Amino acid sequence: MQKTKEITTFVKAVTLRDLKDLTSIKNDIEEGMILIIRITPLAQKSIEELREAIDKLYDFVKSIEGDIARLGEERVVITPPNVKIWKDSNKLQ
Amino acid sequence: MQKTKEITTFVKAVTLRDLKDLTSIKNDIEEGMILIIRITPLAQKSIEELREAIDKLYDFVKSIEGDIARLGEERVVITPPNVKIWKDSNKLQ
Repeated sequence: MQKTKEITTFVKAVTLRDLKDLTSIKNDIEEGMILIIRITPLAQKSIEELREAIDKLYDFVKSIEGDIARLGEERVVITPPNVKIWKDSNKLQ
Repeated sequence: MQKTKEITTFVKAVTLRDLKDLTSIKNDIEEGMILIIRITPLAQKSIEELREAIDKLYDFVKSIEGDIARLGEERVVITPPNVKIWKDSNKLQ
């Protein structure tokens, strides 16, 4: 990976429609992006698959020492290792 | 401002209920935080005030060379200068 002194971090909004979408989400995080993931499309398709996806995201985030938090009913925020989610309480507004 | 080599960036979720909330939002951005702002409480109170708040946020972001984008109906994302919002299209999902 090429490194420059002035690294721009990106925030990217994506939609989780299928378990297969996890691959690109993980790639983006590994590239240092902050992802805001809309999870409602997968929730409407299958609660079981959503649960599996969320479990996998939690495991992934733990393995890379990133951070993850729910954002209301519709979204989840995931960050790479150098970015943390500010938690006043246990729940995001 | 004290600088360290390993700077942790924070993502913070906040709620905009009043024009007065803009002060702390601006302070957080100036401290390098990425803000995800829930705008619905102010929208429900006054569309005029919301419009004024959004205008002020756009002006502020432009002045500091940060970035701003709508996130669905309920939220706005604002970033400090070193963080950009990935835009595949003109609209975030």
